[in-house]
Parts: sequence; structure tokens; C-alpha cells
Amino acid sequence: MADYRAPRDDMDFVLHDVFNVAADWELAPELAEMMDVETAGAILDEGAKVAENLVAPLAREADEEGVKFEDGAVTTPKGYKENFRQLAEGGWVGVTANPEFGGMGLPKSLSAQYEEMLCSADIAFSLYPGLTSGAIMAIDSHGSDELKNHYLPRMVSGEWTGTMCLTEPHAGTDLGIIKSKAIPSEDGSFEISGTKIFITGGEHDLADNIVHLVLAKLPDAPAGTKGISLFVVPKFLSDAEGNLTERNAVSCGSIEHKMGIHGSATCVMNFDGAKGWLVGEPHRGLPAMFTMMNYERLGVGIQGLGAAERSYQNALEYAKDRIQGRGAKATRNDSAEADSILVHGDVRRMLLTMKALTEGGRAFSTWVGQQLDRSKYSQDDAVREKADAMVALLTPVAKAFLTDTGLESTIHGQQVFGGHGYVREWGQEQLVRDTRIAQIYEGTNGIQALDLLGRKVGGSRGELLKPFVEEIATFLQGIAGNSNWAKEAETLQKSLQDLTSISEELLQKAATDENLVNSVAVEYLHLVGYISYGYMWLRMAVAAEQKQAEKPYLASKIKTARFYFARIMPRTHALLGAIKDGSESLYLHDDEQF
Amino acid sequence: MADYRAPRDDMDFVLHDVFNVAADWELAPELAEMMDVETAGAILDEGAKVAENLVAPLAREADEEGVKFEDGAVTTPKGYKENFRQLAEGGWVGVTANPEFGGMGLPKSLSAQYEEMLCSADIAFSLYPGLTSGAIMAIDSHGSDELKNHYLPRMVSGEWTGTMCLTEPHAGTDLGIIKSKAIPSEDGSFEISGTKIFITGGEHDLADNIVHLVLAKLPDAPAGTKGISLFVVPKFLSDAEGNLTERNAVSCGSIEHKMGIHGSATCVMNFDGAKGWLVGEPHRGLPAMFTMMNYERLGVGIQGLGAAERSYQNALEYAKDRIQGRGAKATRNDSAEADSILVHGDVRRMLLTMKALTEGGRAFSTWVGQQLDRSKYSQDDAVREKADAMVALLTPVAKAFLTDTGLESTIHGQQVFGGHGYVREWGQEQLVRDTRIAQIYEGTNGIQALDLLGRKVGGSRGELLKPFVEEIATFLQGIAGNSNWAKEAETLQKSLQDLTSISEELLQKAATDENLVNSVAVEYLHLVGYISYGYMWLRMAVAAEQKQAEKPYLASKIKTARFYFARIMPRTHALLGAIKDGSESLYLHDDEQF
Repeated sequence: MADYRAPRDDMDFVLHDVFNVAADWELAPELAEMMDVETAGAILDEGAKVAENLVAPLAREADEEGVKFEDGAVTTPKGYKENFRQLAEGGWVGVTANPEFGGMGLPKSLSAQYEEMLCSADIAFSLYPGLTSGAIMAIDSHGSDELKNHYLPRMVSGEWTGTMCLTEPHAGTDLGIIKSKAIPSEDGSFEISGTKIFITGGEHDLADNIVHLVLAKLPDAPAGTKGISLFVVPKFLSDAEGNLTERNAVSCGSIEHKMGIHGSATCVMNFDGAKGWLVGEPHRGLPAMFTMMNYERLGVGIQGLGAAERSYQNALEYAKDRIQGRGAKATRNDSAEADSILVHGDVRRMLLTMKALTEGGRAFSTWVGQQLDRSKYSQDDAVREKADAMVALLTPVAKAFLTDTGLESTIHGQQVFGGHGYVREWGQEQLVRDTRIAQIYEGTNGIQALDLLGRKVGGSRGELLKPFVEEIATFLQGIAGNSNWAKEAETLQKSLQDLTSISEELLQKAATDENLVNSVAVEYLHLVGYISYGYMWLRMAVAAEQKQAEKPYLASKIKTARFYFARIMPRTHALLGAIKDGSESLYLHDDEQF
Repeated sequence: MADYRAPRDDMDFVLHDVFNVAADWELAPELAEMMDVETAGAILDEGAKVAENLVAPLAREADEEGVKFEDGAVTTPKGYKENFRQLAEGGWVGVTANPEFGGMGLPKSLSAQYEEMLCSADIAFSLYPGLTSGAIMAIDSHGSDELKNHYLPRMVSGEWTGTMCLTEPHAGTDLGIIKSKAIPSEDGSFEISGTKIFITGGEHDLADNIVHLVLAKLPDAPAGTKGISLFVVPKFLSDAEGNLTERNAVSCGSIEHKMGIHGSATCVMNFDGAKGWLVGEPHRGLPAMFTMMNYERLGVGIQGLGAAERSYQNALEYAKDRIQGRGAKATRNDSAEADSILVHGDVRRMLLTMKALTEGGRAFSTWVGQQLDRSKYSQDDAVREKADAMVALLTPVAKAFLTDTGLESTIHGQQVFGGHGYVREWGQEQLVRDTRIAQIYEGTNGIQALDLLGRKVGGSRGELLKPFVEEIATFLQGIAGNSNWAKEAETLQKSLQDLTSISEELLQKAATDENLVNSVAVEYLHLVGYISYGYMWLRMAVAAEQKQAEKPYLASKIKTARFYFARIMPRTHALLGAIKDGSESLYLHDDEQF
């Protein structure tokens, strides 16, 4: 596999030339003093070294070795432990965490870049700090001061790691029917019992303690999702100073043997009256869990992005090196027996599709990160309110679209390699296997689509769509005088109108057709995705034109923008056609006719 | 994983109610006496038992165990050897082989069904008899009587197996640059030297001898593809009675560790002056290899089809059993806490997409099989001529479109399973891994597309497209009075017009744009694929209407036809949009701008 090289130039271009995130930072009291363009660059340069030199070199072997399970203990692949220690010491576990507890407190627009690099390097490894980061956020947002002071400093430092324990054998998507129980004890703690499955990092050898965040039901819980509470349940109990005392009644029963992310331990966790503490209000566990979900879901989307970038780098290097067949006469290398396969239209199509989806995806994830930052940091109510709406709308798109296009990119990369793409040694097929899970976990992409069209667009009666449509329309008005992009702007304008009218139509029809939303949600999400990327590509194209004199490599950006509109945007026609059918053709079959 | 159940009803429907293949058989001297509807049914029933009871049960464990390599010898997974013996004894290795040498001599329309079942059961295992079958055909078509009499009876009986040795480390797609050499010996044989890679079944423990078909260059060979000759090179030499004498100088240097088909040995084969015999004329090895390519490529397409069928069966069983979330009020099971996930629109979308692509694919592969049979058996020059044209046009579509939609189906199936689709135990993720190779080997799907648009459509100046377009247009005229399908017929009619006009446009432009064909070939092939499936679905719908009184289960067929046109056919709009861009946006980037 090609050595990984972090796309630092493109990250800087997106952050500063396209989105000017530093202007936001200046307005935020928490960021103004600590963060500027230069500091951000220095941090990402260091992050790039971590990803390139520390994490990436272990990924291939870790996939072969996998995690091992014996007598309830999990051994991670060779080198993971030392790498995790180095990461922790460098502060990279607490990259987004509250500085009050030792975190770097990076804004998401910035940490998204670091996360992408880590995922390009090794998705399996990235999950250990990634889940810890999510658990930190949950405790920080909803835990008592006592819980925060006890757990956060040790988790932020990487001394202890974290998990999220949601899924049960019979309940994944539908958390309302979980069976795990929490019985109050006299000392204010709870006894937690139940079985959780698919717990990433539920057991491992990277840290001294593991802090599980567990969804369970109190004895007086109402039925369904309104009766779920959130608990902290550590693997080891500890005294006031944080010294580990006794083992808690939580254990790993087995690990899953999976298609990919072999270096990540996916555990069945058994809670047998384990001691736990309530996080937040009783029965309010699901909303508490969901406050960090926007960050987590963007994070999972970024796994798809990271893999796509790596796939592009690999396939490009292979395409340049592989001499096979002949290009058009004009481009032929007459001194050799054959040309590099980069001359072939179909190889270029696959490479440019990856390039367009990956750079478009990077801009999109940064844009969503910027919305999260505005929502968190902005002092301006109007800005914050709009950012909240954008976050609500775009989070499911980020999770699902970045991972769907991520899988597509890893498959294109594999195809560029031909037979070598199927052989493990080259590392390309691992990207396909490792990426595939990101479409499934943290809410399947079908669930994301339902969230977008049902809860967000439908739930707001279309209101949440408005700031999105308005922002793009305003941008298009702003470039109306730029004749270089008139054709692409017209395409985007037309798609935006299609989106608006199909959304209105769906809202109307959904009132009388209960099946409609879930029948077209996935295609609808993809439509929003391609329009979002179209917007990203036009913004990048215009920014690239402005900066090209200073940064000549941006000439490529302009060309890829042309490609995106010519070859990728037509996909919206297929999606619109399918959406227009509504639920009709999906509900003709009786159960036994499947 | 759900037990595999061969879709025998659907196979009979397609063979007899849709394509009436028996009418062709009656007109063919070689088939008229041996084959009729009843005999065909009995053979497929037996084939179904082989696939269901013998082959399928080993697939999961064989994937975990894989093939082992030690000291030049390959050990296949537990049970493969015994299963191969039973298959051979049942005559299933020589299923399509010439009866003169002990083969069953089944027409392709029929053997395609058996192949599909075997691939649904275990693609990795299916490759051992599959490659042998291809080697048999090559020797039968081009070998001398001496070669035929010596090798074919033993290969047809499964006593010996066969391989195809084409690819070399530096030459896969571009066979013109292979380096393997053949030096004539005084006894009329040749000394073959060179290294071949990706050789399926190059070494194994299933049979006493392995007969390699090897492409190599004679000393006086012209450069490029016109200088390649074909040789038979056995693992063991044998005397006139076929008793093995000495080991030939051919050996397996190593095996590949792959993403999937773990039970199939993918070998590096070293030929060190190995004794071989010329098959056919000197320097005419590539055309000789390609006479069987039409059969082989359809066969690889059928791997995608078999996997798609299995994926559908698995996912459907899971969807029916999995209780999660709530359906629309009208369909809700109020006595339970939740409903089967089959009530959800998005789950139905994924299942019906698989169903539509799989049943459409089965009809398509049978149709192409029928063309191959007419081309081979028909006594009518006009019928044979048309069938030849259809075979030439549709073979690359069958290989690429059946495998592209096959991968899509295995991925949908995995998504229906949620997290369980990612866990090896369930067998679903194995389907994804096993299917992926079929898009790559036997000519990548990009190469198939180039063959379709460049060699076939372009090379014939559009002539080869005409019988295809005319057949569909004639069918549409024939159902013009059927108002039940007026809407779908109009959609197909429109797509056919689009295909005709875009083909003309491409032919014109290609005259001055050398890059055009390979820039749009993949989208073009998909366009032909969706139109072909549209034709299949309308033919099936009309046949189902006629037979429904007799076979009530065909009501489902009619509903799936509606689904196909409503939700899948719109994809043609995206393809057309991309094709219209031509090569332009693919050739903007300089090499260093990628």
C-alpha cells in the first residue's frame, strides 16, 4: 500500500480559503486567544505526523493479527498499546475535550481534519480514542460535578478509556425495547444488569480502566424510549484519588469475528449487578446520549471520508506505476511497450470520481463542523439559531452520505488495482472491509435517512430545510456575474428547485401516507448529499479561482469541479425519478410474495 | 445463514414460460432426443440437491479454514475433496461437455441454472469444476484429436482438472506483452517457461492431475497479441493409457491471501521448461482462448447472480424474523412490542431491489444462454446469425452487469442485517467478499464495457446493436394492446430511443475523439444492462399474466415488475446524463494534477 500522506494543503484550503473558519474563532471567547490560522496549522501538522508515522504503519499487520480473546481478556494487535500511550501523551485522546479537564478543546472544524487523518491511517485503531472522546462529551454535558471531576481528567489523559453501551441482542435501532435494568442502591448508586452487544472497545489492554456509558431502565421506567436512563459503569471501581480498588461486575463474554476493523474489539458485555451511577436525569438517558450524537455521527461519516482519501492515494500511485495497454495516439509513450493506465478514460473516471467525492466530502465535513462550532461558540443568537438548524439537518447527511460515498470510493480504488485490489497484501481490500461498517453502526444509513426526512424535514414541516436552501440560493446569487461557472450554477439552481418542490410534495402526501417517508428517505438523503457536494464544489471552484495565482495547485480543483458537475451531478435525476414513485411500488407485495 | 433453497420454480418459469427454450431444443439435432421439459426439470432437481445438500453446507467453514500452502502443495478446505469426488461421479464436472467424451452436453440455457445454484451455494468451490469446464471447451474446440482423446475423458470425469494460465505479474489486461516462452522440442512438444499469476486452481488436492492451458510466445512470434500461442501443460506427464508417469516442470510458488473466495486456491505458477503441447495454430492462441470466453464470461456473471439470490434469501429470512420498530398503524401487530422489520419501507426497498435485480438477472442470463445455444445448435442460418450478433453484444453486459448488480445485492442484504451483516458467523458478509472478485477477473468490468462499446458497437459501426433494438421494439409492438403495461412499455420505448440516439452520437464523435469510448463505456454498459432488464421484466410480466391462473405465485412477479420500472429504471437518466459529457471532463487534468 502507498504510504499515507495527509492532504494538509487541501485541509488548509478548505478551512481558510473556502470557509474562513478563523473569522468564527475570533468571535468566540473560548477560541479567540487559543486559536488562529498558524496555531491550527501547527496542530494539524503534528496530527499528520501521528497519523502518517505512528498509526498508519501498523494498520495492515493489525488487520491480519486482529484482537484476541481469552478468559475474558482482550489483547489488541502488536503496537497498538504503545501507540495509544504515545497518542495519549501527545494529548490526542482529548483533542476535542474541555480544557478544564485537560483537553485541547479544538473546534470541530479543526478536529474533523485530525479525525480524517487518523481514519485514513487506521479506522480500527481510531475507534479507541474516538469512543473515549464520545464518552467524555456525554459525561461532560450531563454528569454531576462529582462524576466529571472523577472521570474526565483520567479519560482525557487516556489513562482510562470509554465506551457506549446501547445495543442489546434483540434491540439495535429500536432502543425503546431494551431490557437492561438498573436497581437503586442505598448509597445512591445503581446495580446494572443486562447484556449489551457490539460494544466497541468494551474490553482491551490499552488502558488501566474502561468507563462504560450504559443505557438501562429504572424499576419505575415508563415503556419505550421515554423510560431509558444513562449510567456510568466502570470496569474497575476506584477510590476518591482515582486509585483502582475492586473489579466491578461487568465482563466481556466474547468478541465478534467481523468482516473488517479487525484491530477493534467488538464485545458482548455482561453486566451482572455492576455498580453504576446515573448520568443526568432519570428516564432522560436517550436525549443525553443524543446531545453528543451530532458529533459522533459526523465522526463516523469522517471514517468514510478518511478511507476514501486513502483509497484515492493508493489507487493513484498504482495507476501511475502500472504500465498496461495504450493511450490515445497523442499521449502515447512510444519508447515503452505500453503506457501507464492513467491514460485510460475509465481509470481516470474512477480516480476522478474518488477525487471529487473525497474533496467534496472534506469540504462538506468541514462545513458541518463549522456549523457545530457556531452552534456551540457563537455569541450571536441568530448565527447560533441558524447553525442549530443546519446541524440538525445535515448531521444525518454527513453520517450516511460520507460513508456511502466512502464505500463507493474504496470500491473504485480496488477496481483500479485489478486483481491486486483483491489481494490482502496490497491493503486496498482492507479499506473496503473497514469502511463497510460505518454505513451500519451509529444508526444505519437507512435510519439516518429516516431522521433527515422524517424527524428533521417532516418534523419541522420543512422549516429546517429553509436555511440550507437559502444559503445556497444566496451563494448562487452572489456568483451570478461569474460566467465561468454559469452552467454549473444553473445545474445547482435547478437541483435546488427540484429539492424544494419534491420536499413540499412529500410533506403533503405524507399526511395521508404513513409509509411514504421511509419509502423514499434514502434516495432523498442522497439527493440532499449531491446538492450539498455541488454547493461545496462551486464554493471551492470560486475560492480556487481567487487563490490560484498564489497557490497554483488549485488549478486541479477547478478541473475537478467541472468533473463533479458533468459526471456526478446527473445522479440526482435517477434519485428524483425514484422518489416520485413514493411508497406505491414498495407496498404491493404481501409478506409471502417476497 | 439461511439454508439455501434453489429457486426452481422461477427457473422453470423463465426457461419455459418466458423463453420457451424447449422449442429451440426440438429443432436441434443434438438436443431433440436427449432433452425436453421433463428431463430438464429432473436434471435441475438433481442439481439443486447437489447445491443445497452437498455444497452449501461447507461454504461458511471453508471460508474460515481457507486453502493451505506448504512445500508447493495446496490443501483445500475440509470436505471439498469428498464433495468434488461426488460431483464428478454425478457427472456435474462435465455438465456442458461434449457427450462424445462423457459429458452431459447440456445446453447453456439449462446449465446456466445449475451454475447459478452452485454459485449460490459456494462460489469458491464452484471454481474448481468451473475452470475445468472452460479448459475442456478450449481443448475440445481447438485441440488435435490426439490431445482431445488423451485429456478430455479424464477431465470430463473429474479425474483431472483444468486451469487457464493467462496473467503474468506485469500483464493482466494487456496480454500482448506477456513474456512466457515456448521453445519447440524435437518430439513435437514444447518447453514452456515463465511465471503466471492469479491462477485459479493452479494447485490443489482434489484430483490426480491438473491440466494447465498456458499462453506463451514461440521464438518466431510477432509482437503483441498476434504472437501468442496456446499450450496444454499437465502437472504430471502420462503414458498413452493415461497413467501418470513423471512430474512436469511446473510448480506452485505461492498462493494469494485474498479478500474472499478463501476456499479457492489462487496460485503463482512457475513453468521451468515444462513439457507442453500446442493447442490449435501457432500464434492463434488468443482467438482460441476467446472462443470459450463467451461461455466463461457468462459463467462469471452468473457468480454475481448466484450470490445475489443467496443474499436475498438470507436477508429476507432475517427481515421476517427480526422484530424491531413499528410499521404503519394499519399493519401493526398490536399484540407484540414491535413489528417485523419487513414492514419498513426502506427494508422493503432493499429487499425488492435485490429481488428485481436477481430475477431480472436470472431471466437475462437465461436469455443470453438461449442465444449461445441458438448460435451453436440452430440449423437455420438466419437464426444463427442473429444469435451470434446477440451473443457478441450481450456477453460483456452479462459478465459486468450481473456482477455489478450482484455486488449491489450482497451489500443491500448486508444492510438489512444491520450489525449482524458485518459479523462473519452469519455468512452474509462472506457473500460480499466472495462476489467482489467477479467484477475483476476474467476481464475487469471496465474492459467488458470497452469491449461492448468499442469492439462490438463501435467495431460494427452500430450493426450489432440493431438486432437487440429490433427485438425489443418488436416485442413492444406486440404488447401495444396490453393496457396493463402501457406505462412501463412507454418507459422502455423511450430508453430504447435514448440508447439508439446516444449510440449514433457516440459513433460519430468517436471518429475524432480517440478517448471517447473508454470515457463513457461503463455508463453505456449499465444503460444497456438496465434496458435489457427492463425488457426481461416486461416479458416476465406478460408471461406471468398469462400463466397466473395456473401458477398463483406469479402474482409476485407482476408486482416486482412494477417495482423495477418505478424504482430501478430511473437510473438510466443518471447514466445518460453522464454519457453526454463524453470524454471532456476526464481529460482536463494533467498527470500531476491528480
